[in-house]
Amino acid sequence: MNTSDQRLVKGARARATIARHAADVASVEGLTGLSLGRLAADLGLSKSGVATLFGTKENLQLAAVQSARDVFIEHVVKPAFAEPGGMPRLKGFVDNWFAYIEEPVLAGGCFRVATTVEFDSRTGPVRDAVDADRRDWFALLEKEIRRAQGQGHLETRDAHTVAFALDAIVAAANTGARMGDQSAIPTARAIVDGLLA
Amino acid sequence: MNTSDQRLVKGARARATIARHAADVASVEGLTGLSLGRLAADLGLSKSGVATLFGTKENLQLAAVQSARDVFIEHVVKPAFAEPGGMPRLKGFVDNWFAYIEEPVLAGGCFRVATTVEFDSRTGPVRDAVDADRRDWFALLEKEIRRAQGQGHLETRDAHTVAFALDAIVAAANTGARMGDQSAIPTARAIVDGLLA
Repeated sequence: MNTSDQRLVKGARARATIARHAADVASVEGLTGLSLGRLAADLGLSKSGVATLFGTKENLQLAAVQSARDVFIEHVVKPAFAEPGGMPRLKGFVDNWFAYIEEPVLAGGCFRVATTVEFDSRTGPVRDAVDADRRDWFALLEKEIRRAQGQGHLETRDAHTVAFALDAIVAAANTGARMGDQSAIPTARAIVDGLLA
Repeated sequence: MNTSDQRLVKGARARATIARHAADVASVEGLTGLSLGRLAADLGLSKSGVATLFGTKENLQLAAVQSARDVFIEHVVKPAFAEPGGMPRLKGFVDNWFAYIEEPVLAGGCFRVATTVEFDSRTGPVRDAVDADRRDWFALLEKEIRRAQGQGHLETRDAHTVAFALDAIVAAANTGARMGDQSAIPTARAIVDGLLA
């Protein structure tokens, strides 16, 4: 690699590190509270260096959404693709999501739950990115629910309704558990097992 | 009333007006973004006047939580007490909560949904106030669920589990509707009707 290439690679790595830390911070404190200066201080970088990589706070927020999305795909979505399509993969999504909430990868638990609620009454590119991620997640769930129905499961129910209920219950488990409610995860698990039975 | 009494009444009214506006703003942008200066500017008051009434941002946040709680009690809880205890009152809570989400009283929809998720990974008095409100709401639901069970409804299910599911589904309806998902409220309504059938 020439010097210019090396600089690009270094920049891309720094960008990924900062975006991942931004996702961690935002999972606890929200995307609104993110600032280039705060992230620079946390990571021992210069504020101008972080500003050069991201430009604006909005770009940093968008990078945090993308980074958190990558983490979710890595921990929840991808491993479930080892299971056959339909009910086994749907159960894989749910099991991995519960595990992701019980032992959070990001400091504040599920980033989607936090930022969907944070941005649901706003407009703009960050809200749109959060919404697109929400839609993708529903589409993924609904696809496997329909496959499961083709396998003779969940027959009488509308796929979107099943996805809505699963998402609602696991999101509430995340919030309850974060709030220190010890019963939240087992209660949610029992409801979800009932839904998928 | 003497001058000192009048000043107290005026102060209490100003405090209530500011707290209510703070609840409105926080329902959209979160409690974290609240500031004494912003609220003063919105309401055409002096920042020092607002600071005299609330002292700190944390006090303002706590006043917003209390004000939003009063709004919820007024619109969702109290009217249901016109219904007999048990299933009719439980259905009253649910119907009023859906109405509260469909035609929001606070600008950003359900304040509890927004602030529970915002504060679930934090510590301190504001988190504790939000958590206390969440506990009260669950206790209220569970009491009427148990009464409904005494009337022969929902027999086989644990009261806390039913309350958890109802709260999760209506909270998700609020978030989905705020996100512009037209199907969120009817989907949630169908799930809740199934739960209470």
